[in-house]
Amino acid sequence: MTQPTMPSHVKIVEVGPRDGLQNEKAVITVAVKVGLVDRLTAAGLAVVETGSFVSPKWVPQMADSAAVYAGITRKPGVSYPFLVPNEKGLEAALAAGVEEIAIFGAASETFSRKNINASIAESLVRFEPVARAARDAGVRVRGYVSTVIACPYEGAIAPAAVARVARALRDMGCYEVSLGDTIGVGTPASTLAMLDAVAREVPVRELAGHFHDTYGQALANVYAALEFGIAVFDSSVAGLGGCPYAKGATGNVATEDVVYLLHGQGIATGVDLDALVDAGAFISAALGRPTGSRVARAVLAKRTA
Amino acid sequence: MTQPTMPSHVKIVEVGPRDGLQNEKAVITVAVKVGLVDRLTAAGLAVVETGSFVSPKWVPQMADSAAVYAGITRKPGVSYPFLVPNEKGLEAALAAGVEEIAIFGAASETFSRKNINASIAESLVRFEPVARAARDAGVRVRGYVSTVIACPYEGAIAPAAVARVARALRDMGCYEVSLGDTIGVGTPASTLAMLDAVAREVPVRELAGHFHDTYGQALANVYAALEFGIAVFDSSVAGLGGCPYAKGATGNVATEDVVYLLHGQGIATGVDLDALVDAGAFISAALGRPTGSRVARAVLAKRTA
Repeated sequence: MTQPTMPSHVKIVEVGPRDGLQNEKAVITVAVKVGLVDRLTAAGLAVVETGSFVSPKWVPQMADSAAVYAGITRKPGVSYPFLVPNEKGLEAALAAGVEEIAIFGAASETFSRKNINASIAESLVRFEPVARAARDAGVRVRGYVSTVIACPYEGAIAPAAVARVARALRDMGCYEVSLGDTIGVGTPASTLAMLDAVAREVPVRELAGHFHDTYGQALANVYAALEFGIAVFDSSVAGLGGCPYAKGATGNVATEDVVYLLHGQGIATGVDLDALVDAGAFISAALGRPTGSRVARAVLAKRTA
Repeated sequence: MTQPTMPSHVKIVEVGPRDGLQNEKAVITVAVKVGLVDRLTAAGLAVVETGSFVSPKWVPQMADSAAVYAGITRKPGVSYPFLVPNEKGLEAALAAGVEEIAIFGAASETFSRKNINASIAESLVRFEPVARAARDAGVRVRGYVSTVIACPYEGAIAPAAVARVARALRDMGCYEVSLGDTIGVGTPASTLAMLDAVAREVPVRELAGHFHDTYGQALANVYAALEFGIAVFDSSVAGLGGCPYAKGATGNVATEDVVYLLHGQGIATGVDLDALVDAGAFISAALGRPTGSRVARAVLAKRTA
């Protein structure tokens, strides 16, 4: 057979409730957010990024994250990370009883300055005490690196720059580093070149792929990353979360589409695809929008046929 | 490096004007069809399936194929195949001066009976004299096999069944056999299992991949097929051609998305992506619909930003 070696199990990190919803302008009630998170864990997802503790001035949609966390049914064995930008955010997260946080750096200097008003080096200095305090409190820390392929301002990003930030996050104690193609321009070749560089600094088993489908390449990149040995992928139910750098364009790859690919490869995910499609239909109805998942569209069309 | 070996050049067979438009209910004028074909060849596509010579009772949208062929600007070196179902169709094609035809078989018995009211064996017997007469007239013959992964009636199709039909089409003199995942349910694993079986009967260099994006898997399948050595892919500009078996679902993979993937791998296609996006925008405007290509959506959003 010509099948390449693939991991036998993949962990999906569902980012819809946070990364997917954070830029939504419409009011989304706590009840809807709780309903989404609970449906996602009921579908078998073991990691659901549930919200963030960021200033409501910057991300008003996530201002109710503590209430969402208080409202969900905590499922044993499930991790509910929250994005935290600084020590103030960590305090709020700890007060809410959060057991896992996520911190983030960019691989592009310009993106870092425009996004969080700090150079890459400054942002890492800022996150160091946050990560230490979190670990001291027994809270797990996950790291994100954004713009790992290209940046909307700078263009192509050197793989070595991604590797440096990933290594710094690992050195701070991140148990896993997620590599984000923020503007979705990567193809398998650029993805593999980036992974090659990062894997020299961080073990492959501690890396996650975070692909956007802006140019429709996300699943091809997932497949290439699987062949590379990556066994953790971030994705967003119903493809929640458009691309803020290209109006009307697609953002996060849809969890349904990733799960369908993985199950097709015989890779276990622990996720029930039908229940996942239901969770996506729930939030799509709440937002009054068609799903961004092609699998969900096909499955729902088949159900009504 | 971990990059797998890839072909250095890939041939794209653009099927939008035929496979993409054939099920459209709205009137599309000859001028629009001619405008589409000429824009596609101007963008560098070297094979453009331009129409079919099928009974207008069955496919009214293609009734003007001879007029379209008479209207286009024939570009040297470009091939314009037309689908032909029987000897009557071949006569019409020859009368129109067509230089390449395509014939088709299904890998699923039930699909064959429902689609063309003949068993697989009967359909092959029917095509044999068509292929012979075409070759006698100096006309090249391309073959299609549909339902190569699964059938909407039977479910999964055995790879050996696909191999038998592909072999039969090659034995009739088809210079290339295109393998179609008609309902778009394949993933890389099932695609590779099918290719493995077919490649035992037909040389890989004579095979083409024809993937549908109904479940969003098309580009992952293209990538896996590239790794297998496939160097010809069918696709449809703007993703023209919905999936007739799942209302609202996506059909043919968009040419723009395939070209973007290939260029990202450093694979030459001869296609100018910007001009291709323009061709897709032209037909999408004529149909009054947004493009089905994610690359086109992102490129157009960037242009207006």
